[in-house]
Amino acid sequence: MPASDHRPAAVLNGSEAFPHRHLTGIAGLQPHEIMFLLDEAEQWVERNRDRAKSDHRLDGITQINAFFENSTRTLLSFEIAGKRLGADVVNMHAAQSSVKKGETLIDTAMTLNAMRADVIVIRHGSSGAVQLIADKVNCPVLNAGDGWHEHPTQALLDALTIRRRRGDIAGQRIVICGDVLHSRVARSNMLALTALAAEVRVVAPSTLMPAAVDRMAVTPFTDFDAALEGADVVMMLRLQNERMNGAFIPSTREYHLRYGLTPERLQHARPDALVMHPGPMNRGVEISSEVADDTARSAITEQVEMGVAVRMACLDVLTRRARGVEGWA
Amino acid sequence: MPASDHRPAAVLNGSEAFPHRHLTGIAGLQPHEIMFLLDEAEQWVERNRDRAKSDHRLDGITQINAFFENSTRTLLSFEIAGKRLGADVVNMHAAQSSVKKGETLIDTAMTLNAMRADVIVIRHGSSGAVQLIADKVNCPVLNAGDGWHEHPTQALLDALTIRRRRGDIAGQRIVICGDVLHSRVARSNMLALTALAAEVRVVAPSTLMPAAVDRMAVTPFTDFDAALEGADVVMMLRLQNERMNGAFIPSTREYHLRYGLTPERLQHARPDALVMHPGPMNRGVEISSEVADDTARSAITEQVEMGVAVRMACLDVLTRRARGVEGWA
Amino acid sequence: MPASDHRPAAVLNGSEAFPHRHLTGIAGLQPHEIMFLLDEAEQWVERNRDRAKSDHRLDGITQINAFFENSTRTLLSFEIAGKRLGADVVNMHAAQSSVKKGETLIDTAMTLNAMRADVIVIRHGSSGAVQLIADKVNCPVLNAGDGWHEHPTQALLDALTIRRRRGDIAGQRIVICGDVLHSRVARSNMLALTALAAEVRVVAPSTLMPAAVDRMAVTPFTDFDAALEGADVVMMLRLQNERMNGAFIPSTREYHLRYGLTPERLQHARPDALVMHPGPMNRGVEISSEVADDTARSAITEQVEMGVAVRMACLDVLTRRARGVEGWA
Repeated sequence: MPASDHRPAAVLNGSEAFPHRHLTGIAGLQPHEIMFLLDEAEQWVERNRDRAKSDHRLDGITQINAFFENSTRTLLSFEIAGKRLGADVVNMHAAQSSVKKGETLIDTAMTLNAMRADVIVIRHGSSGAVQLIADKVNCPVLNAGDGWHEHPTQALLDALTIRRRRGDIAGQRIVICGDVLHSRVARSNMLALTALAAEVRVVAPSTLMPAAVDRMAVTPFTDFDAALEGADVVMMLRLQNERMNGAFIPSTREYHLRYGLTPERLQHARPDALVMHPGPMNRGVEISSEVADDTARSAITEQVEMGVAVRMACLDVLTRRARGVEGWA
Repeated sequence: MPASDHRPAAVLNGSEAFPHRHLTGIAGLQPHEIMFLLDEAEQWVERNRDRAKSDHRLDGITQINAFFENSTRTLLSFEIAGKRLGADVVNMHAAQSSVKKGETLIDTAMTLNAMRADVIVIRHGSSGAVQLIADKVNCPVLNAGDGWHEHPTQALLDALTIRRRRGDIAGQRIVICGDVLHSRVARSNMLALTALAAEVRVVAPSTLMPAAVDRMAVTPFTDFDAALEGADVVMMLRLQNERMNGAFIPSTREYHLRYGLTPERLQHARPDALVMHPGPMNRGVEISSEVADDTARSAITEQVEMGVAVRMACLDVLTRRARGVEGWA
Repeated sequence: MPASDHRPAAVLNGSEAFPHRHLTGIAGLQPHEIMFLLDEAEQWVERNRDRAKSDHRLDGITQINAFFENSTRTLLSFEIAGKRLGADVVNMHAAQSSVKKGETLIDTAMTLNAMRADVIVIRHGSSGAVQLIADKVNCPVLNAGDGWHEHPTQALLDALTIRRRRGDIAGQRIVICGDVLHSRVARSNMLALTALAAEVRVVAPSTLMPAAVDRMAVTPFTDFDAALEGADVVMMLRLQNERMNGAFIPSTREYHLRYGLTPERLQHARPDALVMHPGPMNRGVEISSEVADDTARSAITEQVEMGVAVRMACLDVLTRRARGVEGWA
């Protein structure tokens, strides 16, 4: 991820700071653009802790959450984010969708567009589906997770959590452990954290390590203990249920023994290492309850909190052009 | 559809222009009443294209969308329409409904009424269910499709699309093709378009042509090419999945050959003929992608856009009495 | 339920009138606290009958309805209540929930808390689940029904209905009939109505009578006719479908003969006795249509109306502390 523009975000005005129409992934973002979104999110962290959370900047804005995959947390987070900003938020659930009637994805996109959506948040099971829609509509599109491709707001909320808890991201040794192969969370995090100059290590059984990991600026490990040496942050990935029995791992018990984060194993990391998990957790599989519930080390609920703030920032920034905010031409 | 009152809508004041409490169907509406709703919708077409879409005239109004049949597009459209007008919009999905617990439809209606709904939008699988509910509640009821009976807002949005694209509806030769027998869309459109003095032709395989078509002021055809001669508008109907195999048509391939709209077949119509479809489309069955995606001819996405505007107009007009708007006694 | 504080609610100021953080049940409430909630609800009964129902006191408040059991009526009622007060209302449906992915209930609670919910409304199939969540979060929790435990807002709306229709609750002879054993509605009502000094009789087949009924200040009956003698109020319980065949009752027909409320049986009660049912009704099982639809006697739709008002009062009262309302320290 080459940073072609090294000027700090502070000196960039208006849309120069974030010139993108959509947020389909972390790939394609400059480091200062990522930092700009994190900076923008800070105000919402504070606001969400206030008594009066509402802001009216998205009044009259129609936000459609088009979720073709089930999701509770991410949908709730985007819905709360939009409503706190004053948007008219409408959810389209796959289960009740025309998609079931055989409509093509592009026809669905054209329909949402024709209803004059001002921003569309999409989750879809197929990698690239979000880009396909972004190419067809007139409004900003926010990727809420597509296949094994990207989940950019997750990477942003993780980066914000790390920055707030560790002071900085650059130079941090961050270990990402789990089903790296099938994880859009891992992919977006590798892109974001390496762009922000962290030292990133990824750990997975060889069956769950992507071949293309060599093309990322990360160091692959199969031995979790070795990877943990000197770690500042340990980011565990959820083991999807459908991966639990069968070809990829022998058993969840075996997986826990080799790749589960336990208090003993965590001793290989730095004493003040931060523990993260995107949720929902499989307690006793990829993470033990002792670690998950250790409030001094675990940032897991803080990640959820940062999620709402980051999504408020993204919704705000991406709609500025359409709302005619000065400087966002 | 006799027009007992031939005065133009413009000279009718307040509720004289639309004296109905509910919108359960196109049947029973005077031509000038249909035109009044189309006229009212025009402002919302413009507003929805603006940056700031919100209007607050329905503040404090509780709109319940009671959908006993799954629907994405129509529900989204009504939800967006209500929210843009400031209403508190609440969706009741059949899948989570007391109906599953054996409650009668009337008990459900009485419940919604007791919650002091101000307007209820209903979709139901049984013809007449909406009227049944309308008879029991104290607030306006909007039919969002009931069985094979009516889908009045679909006919209104189609009429608005035609009026905007062709200048007028009267005198237009409009061909409606497909499963006319089971289509509430066809039924409401036949009623609306003949009331507005269009020349309406309906095309279907004999198994899918209603016997009662003779009582409508339309001309039935079984030969699609013959019906298309000189057509100004070609309105294709969706072939429901459950009709695709079995008693009604030999196969979807066969159906496409005889009743699918292709570029070749469209040459029988006027060179500037408009192509319409209520969506979601079965591409390659009732309509070919070449025709659907021909932006010069196809008004399909415009229909979706008009849908939101028409529903905003209906929600506004039907709640005027309850909101105490002057002249709506 | 001893009333340790007999001062009337009127002389208690601010949070003295209702010092509880949560509403997990009727158990633990003082009689004057129950009356305070009923008094607060009265204003919303009136407001809901007005043209303009909206109030903005919950602007900027995030209300999450976390329903782990399906429900139409109760969810709709809480959603409408919150929206009429101006809250940002977000529904979390179990069907699309992380719970399905194996997340623990406490992790779900921590997630909702981290999103900075201001009030959480919970329905759950397990008794005690709501208290478990209340213990973990920083915001007020409202029990919308948990297992066989409690359904406090149902008891409050029933009490409000009785108070409005009978003038008072104290001294009324109230008969609760049906599946008392499995009914959280019965449990919360027994607690509320005895606290408010009604004379409560419960009727059930011996297989559906809880052993612990002796510890309640109620009189158990197995003979419905005997219980009805001199009754001021007859409150029927819904017979859950899953109880209809099998171990508990021989058949629904048999059940109706012995425990169904018919016009003949109702003659055992006082001539002006009120008939109540929490809905949805099984007509012809626990209640006959003649009785249910007798508007002079039946308060069933009024109960639904009181439900919205009571829930508005609870949402308002429980969020006062967080909103900094004067006197609610």
